[in-house]
Amino acid sequence: MTDKMCITVATGSVDRLTGMAVLVSAAAAMDVEVEIFLQLWGVYAFKKDVINKNMNLIEFKELGPQVVEGMKRANIPPWFEMLKQAKEVGKVKIYACSAASKIWDVKLEDLEMVDEVMGAGEWLDKMKEAKINLFI
Amino acid sequence: MTDKMCITVATGSVDRLTGMAVLVSAAAAMDVEVEIFLQLWGVYAFKKDVINKNMNLIEFKELGPQVVEGMKRANIPPWFEMLKQAKEVGKVKIYACSAASKIWDVKLEDLEMVDEVMGAGEWLDKMKEAKINLFI
Amino acid sequence: MTDKMCITVATGSVDRLTGMAVLVSAAAAMDVEVEIFLQLWGVYAFKKDVINKNMNLIEFKELGPQVVEGMKRANIPPWFEMLKQAKEVGKVKIYACSAASKIWDVKLEDLEMVDEVMGAGEWLDKMKEAKINLFI
Repeated sequence: MTDKMCITVATGSVDRLTGMAVLVSAAAAMDVEVEIFLQLWGVYAFKKDVINKNMNLIEFKELGPQVVEGMKRANIPPWFEMLKQAKEVGKVKIYACSAASKIWDVKLEDLEMVDEVMGAGEWLDKMKEAKINLFI
Repeated sequence: MTDKMCITVATGSVDRLTGMAVLVSAAAAMDVEVEIFLQLWGVYAFKKDVINKNMNLIEFKELGPQVVEGMKRANIPPWFEMLKQAKEVGKVKIYACSAASKIWDVKLEDLEMVDEVMGAGEWLDKMKEAKINLFI
Repeated sequence: MTDKMCITVATGSVDRLTGMAVLVSAAAAMDVEVEIFLQLWGVYAFKKDVINKNMNLIEFKELGPQVVEGMKRANIPPWFEMLKQAKEVGKVKIYACSAASKIWDVKLEDLEMVDEVMGAGEWLDKMKEAKINLFI
């Protein structure tokens, strides 16, 4: 049995998603199982027509150019690239909330990297089993 | 003994509160005990003169109309209606941080659905007992 | 062995940092160990040239003056003062994410109250040991 980290993702902003991706990358490298549940803006940010165009910051929008420059200098890939790599090397599953999927009128095939559409009840069962729970 | 989920609510934005309400509804239906601690904007959002007028989004404000339309289509009630129902069917307690209540100059009777005003120390004791802790 | 609370800080906004500081103060007073990991905006907010000038709110920016007034009335010190006091009376350690430190091009001596620069892998090990995990 491995440790497990469950992350509920309410945000769709790239600053917070980058923070999440850094934790998920570390977890994948350390063989910590990760499960991710996308809520409202989370589902939006994983839409195939949004994922690599979205530049939204949740705070300090005026510092966006400085962050972009700093990420280049520090050699940090975009959050979705980090997540893709984490899915390849580790145990990372991504679920979209069924209610949020209805709000955006999307199906599994409209979403990038998502493994399953899932209800909140099923997600809660997963959260109960996790060593680490985060809400992002 | 039942499992318990403790949620510290710093936000007052309806997008994040909706995400919380979906989890709380699921928990209430599954007999998972929920305790909620309102901090700054959380207390603000539960004020009787604010709760059903507040339309603030924490991110992607420009997509507000699309979310409102999607929630109607998906038949998702406002977050405070979900919470009210969860309180009726399940074990859901809501506390307002005493410091935040002083900031807004409110008493228990000025707040909707709140069971008690509580200090952070007492809240920490509750967090220590919880299976799931979230900060929203 | 004491209980431990691990807080991952993605935000740099004073409203959320104040909520965190209230919890950390309570924990320090109750002998609960606290470890804090600063990500992107977290590192920014702890920069010596930013920490006491930063007035950014993550939501309801238009209510800023009312919050400032309410905090004075309620006698609540700024978040970084609360954190300083918590570090004096309790077991509170603050780490800056090494990747985020590269983005801002800062070293330990450029940051206020930070004890160490640390990678996400090391942080994950700490999160796994914590009774309470929060992402702020």
